[in-house]
Amino acid sequence: MPLMRSWVESANAPDCPFPLNNLPYGVFSTGDEEPRCGVAIGSQILDCRAAESVGLLNFGTDPLFDVPFWNEVMEQGPELWDRLRNVLTGLLAEGSSARASVEPFLVDQSMARMHMPFLVSEYTDFYAGRHHATNVGTMFRGAENALPPNWLHIPIGYNGRGSSVVVSGTDVRRPWGQLKGPNDDAPRFAPCARFDLELEMGAIVGVESDGPVTVKEADEMIFGYVLLNDWSARDIQAWEYQPLGPFQAKATATTISPWIVTRAALEPFRCDTPAREKELLPHLRDCGPMLYDIDLTVTLTPEGKTPSTIATANYNFMYYSSAQQLAHHTTSGCPMNPGDLLGSGTISGPEKHQRGSLLELSWGGKEPLTLDGGDTRSFLEDGDRLTLTGVARGEGFTIGFGECAGRVLPALKDPYAR
Amino acid sequence: MPLMRSWVESANAPDCPFPLNNLPYGVFSTGDEEPRCGVAIGSQILDCRAAESVGLLNFGTDPLFDVPFWNEVMEQGPELWDRLRNVLTGLLAEGSSARASVEPFLVDQSMARMHMPFLVSEYTDFYAGRHHATNVGTMFRGAENALPPNWLHIPIGYNGRGSSVVVSGTDVRRPWGQLKGPNDDAPRFAPCARFDLELEMGAIVGVESDGPVTVKEADEMIFGYVLLNDWSARDIQAWEYQPLGPFQAKATATTISPWIVTRAALEPFRCDTPAREKELLPHLRDCGPMLYDIDLTVTLTPEGKTPSTIATANYNFMYYSSAQQLAHHTTSGCPMNPGDLLGSGTISGPEKHQRGSLLELSWGGKEPLTLDGGDTRSFLEDGDRLTLTGVARGEGFTIGFGECAGRVLPALKDPYAR
Repeated sequence: MPLMRSWVESANAPDCPFPLNNLPYGVFSTGDEEPRCGVAIGSQILDCRAAESVGLLNFGTDPLFDVPFWNEVMEQGPELWDRLRNVLTGLLAEGSSARASVEPFLVDQSMARMHMPFLVSEYTDFYAGRHHATNVGTMFRGAENALPPNWLHIPIGYNGRGSSVVVSGTDVRRPWGQLKGPNDDAPRFAPCARFDLELEMGAIVGVESDGPVTVKEADEMIFGYVLLNDWSARDIQAWEYQPLGPFQAKATATTISPWIVTRAALEPFRCDTPAREKELLPHLRDCGPMLYDIDLTVTLTPEGKTPSTIATANYNFMYYSSAQQLAHHTTSGCPMNPGDLLGSGTISGPEKHQRGSLLELSWGGKEPLTLDGGDTRSFLEDGDRLTLTGVARGEGFTIGFGECAGRVLPALKDPYAR
Repeated sequence: MPLMRSWVESANAPDCPFPLNNLPYGVFSTGDEEPRCGVAIGSQILDCRAAESVGLLNFGTDPLFDVPFWNEVMEQGPELWDRLRNVLTGLLAEGSSARASVEPFLVDQSMARMHMPFLVSEYTDFYAGRHHATNVGTMFRGAENALPPNWLHIPIGYNGRGSSVVVSGTDVRRPWGQLKGPNDDAPRFAPCARFDLELEMGAIVGVESDGPVTVKEADEMIFGYVLLNDWSARDIQAWEYQPLGPFQAKATATTISPWIVTRAALEPFRCDTPAREKELLPHLRDCGPMLYDIDLTVTLTPEGKTPSTIATANYNFMYYSSAQQLAHHTTSGCPMNPGDLLGSGTISGPEKHQRGSLLELSWGGKEPLTLDGGDTRSFLEDGDRLTLTGVARGEGFTIGFGECAGRVLPALKDPYAR
């Protein structure tokens, strides 16, 4: 698929992340105004609330844009998602007769502050990248037992904490937690010393389920995708995670990119999951190309210093797709809802520079990473800014998500001081 | 504290679960009417929406009872909770001058259908009963390694699935899942064959947190308590839970009792946690009596047969209180919200008849339980009805929760048939 041209000229540049082919959904505000829904086009944002109020976006439903989140659009289901995308494409396409009526509702992105694009209903995180699971398993259990016996049969996941999901740009405070090293006599309560990132994609469930769904049905339930950094306290995790899994280690924050890139926009970039070492049971089998070819980059910027790219990867390194994860999520009859967020699991590739966490990049701290300015890192230091970016490259255009960034603030001196 | 007498005569019977001392909060409907908030008193329910509409419940806030859930009351915070309880007590006390104006708003409980009393924000389940953890650990890892090393230092918990919480009376369908026995060559997708209950109490968080909270602050954040049955698919759990904890095994349903018994109503029943084998770190230490003396009973009724009491226990068998669990939950900075539900963990006592799950009662199926009618049970069978009850016994009065019940429906024949 080639570039679809828009009358918003900035959208037609080959490296612009927001061409007419993309049309991602976010929530923005300017000055002191209330946050509202918008669609990115080139360097601009189309104000959906304003466009709806003059009848440019009217689907015979109750108002969809009188709230500062995209959940009401999600709840309408895939048919409305298609109609909305078609109308937006028509309004913004080169030669559109609507240009004069739409143009007053464009806002320059440089004037906008971005907010959470949707209300997170619940958050589930997976462990579905084979290179990541193998790396972590090798560190913790040895190369022989790296992959747990179930790993090749089900996408391993655990419920995270939806309340901790924040939008890009939100500072993240280093947590306190209970820690006990392997040689310590007793645990202690202290600031996390092994604070880490996890490079992930997030899939947003758009409609509710009532009982188990097939992989194909699951795919059609997905509204769109965001970049996702699942901040992780490795030392808290090591002490707490047996036998019931990660809990406080993953509850400080999870950062997502501000723009929801729709499934429709990513359609041209579908690609296959890797060859299966063990055939999946029928209810989890692929029903077509289930991943997307999205180049991912992690940049670390120490406070006041120059950025270093510390990892590059691709979403197609995953073993399980989001649709397979969602299908598995419903096997027990678990009700899924609009706004549920599914983290893909850490995305790592086969090469060392493709590892999506500092745990893997520094091999548990044994091989500190050297940054471009000469600093070294085993885990994150206070003031470090982490930025994830994602790009799908079409013929003469690119699809982006906006950056998924956050800065590490120092731990509170006394977490119980009021 | 003795019985507080009400002009609602049925509330003064010594075995009535809803005396004036209790005043628990629920949501009910009659006939085709919309669900609305109510307070149980004796055999009656006071319709809070109706009482508010005529000015009997007015706290200078926006309407609190124009919605069918108690979250708006929760969000007002502990000061309003106290005022509301005082006003209700005044309206319903023996000799109240308000009797004539309140009486028209009483609804007979036998005419009412109960609904979820609050919107569950997120659901966390703990593993904080020592006898349960020891029993399960002994079965799975041997007596030597029964308690994980962290168990005596932190309340082990994992995030559950809020969307799966249902009110008492909701049928629960036996789930499908991926299963693999220790001697099977490969996993298969099949209905759960080891479906189980977990006898628990649920604590409802009433106010939001912003950063770590002390145990005392946590205690004051708790709005009230319900009975809770965390339905568990043991065979699904066995295959999926390593390394990241239970997921689909716990996502089919969690049943709660319909009435939220407030912290204030339980105040006379406070009692100490057990002696600590290892001293807790300061941020988790008890700050007074932190548990409640509540007798708990589990009854199993096979379809068309007589009920059998299969377990009796007490909430004071727990090692960690809900306040300690909530304090731990915030250590990482995890934001807690009104409507968050914390499952206590399975409540088992030292005696065999005090075990709060069939997994323990039948010792993993090795010692099937004989019911009163002669049937035996290792795990739940289709048509079985499970009923949890809880009673705190005062001087001449009792505090109850209403029953927490659910019936097991057979698994779907084909979960993907539409």
